[in-house]
Amino acid sequence: MSRLESQLTFLVEIDKLKNVIRRSLLTDGSRRENSAEHSWHLAVFAILLQEYAPAQLDIKRVLKMLLIHDVVEVDAGDTFAYDIGNLATQHEREQRAADRLFGLLPADQQRELRGLWEEFEQQSTTESKFANALDRLQPLLQNFHSGGQSWRDHSVTPEQVFERMRPIERGAPELWPLVLEIIHNASQRGLLKPSATPTLVR
Amino acid sequence: MSRLESQLTFLVEIDKLKNVIRRSLLTDGSRRENSAEHSWHLAVFAILLQEYAPAQLDIKRVLKMLLIHDVVEVDAGDTFAYDIGNLATQHEREQRAADRLFGLLPADQQRELRGLWEEFEQQSTTESKFANALDRLQPLLQNFHSGGQSWRDHSVTPEQVFERMRPIERGAPELWPLVLEIIHNASQRGLLKPSATPTLVR
Repeated sequence: MSRLESQLTFLVEIDKLKNVIRRSLLTDGSRRENSAEHSWHLAVFAILLQEYAPAQLDIKRVLKMLLIHDVVEVDAGDTFAYDIGNLATQHEREQRAADRLFGLLPADQQRELRGLWEEFEQQSTTESKFANALDRLQPLLQNFHSGGQSWRDHSVTPEQVFERMRPIERGAPELWPLVLEIIHNASQRGLLKPSATPTLVR
Repeated sequence: MSRLESQLTFLVEIDKLKNVIRRSLLTDGSRRENSAEHSWHLAVFAILLQEYAPAQLDIKRVLKMLLIHDVVEVDAGDTFAYDIGNLATQHEREQRAADRLFGLLPADQQRELRGLWEEFEQQSTTESKFANALDRLQPLLQNFHSGGQSWRDHSVTPEQVFERMRPIERGAPELWPLVLEIIHNASQRGLLKPSATPTLVR
């Protein structure tokens, strides 16, 4: 297979990401979001919110990372953030998916994209921490603006959201007060399940 | 409104792009594609196919351009490539949409994103020519792999596709032979309407 054929095979294959359905609804509540449009939205988040990263960013790397961070879901599916059972097998399923999908690419591009995906997963660089922060912030906003349907469906508590949002505190600390405000408002509006411990602020 | 509030307002507003439906089907034929997931797909096309641009590219600018090139459709809707009536009013509708949507942003980001969108529209730089080439190539592949449904629905001829694909010849000339091959195969498989003039090759 020629280099171009390999590239096109990958590009056609990842079209399937448009049929991987997440738990979050669109902000108008009309339907659940898919992972392709979620990835697009995150990339625009990165363009506009990069000034809130704690250090100078290579935005090109952030964009590439966000654009491919979910492609393994073509094989592995989306794993709901609050689904403990599925989370346990997520790593192995996603590694197998990465082997197959990035394996469709020419060797140099396979290395680059696989590397970016591993970096996103490991959250060890400024870029990957920031990218992970956005990957938490976007569904928080989606859930909040769509009336918290996916939270209510799964009886999610403020503490669960708070823990889930921790990467924002690490990757985009300037946005952390916004997160606290949204969780507070969501609790007051009854979108989150009241919990035993009454306060969120440490 | 604070700077962050303006940015979030824009990011929530463009969520609506996920409900702007294009004519192209997903490659599995299951439904029509929306402009948000289309934009994501194009950006991944850019990452993988940048080597076919005719000159050195600033890939960061290409990615940003592709990620926001369709946001005006939130107000203006998608305009089908072969719909002459709607094409006539497209420019005015999209300028009004750009005024409103980019106008939600802080002034510096408004200038940057509006500038990138205008650049995409004008196709005068290497980056914008390449971005436009991908914006033609992706639906060509989608249509071909989904059995040409949107071509057949509108009795599109090989000549129409050929003319529609011209930006690829300008913006990514190394990919032009691929385009000719796909049009030829699509014609042979009956996905395009037979036309009076029997040959495509000039």
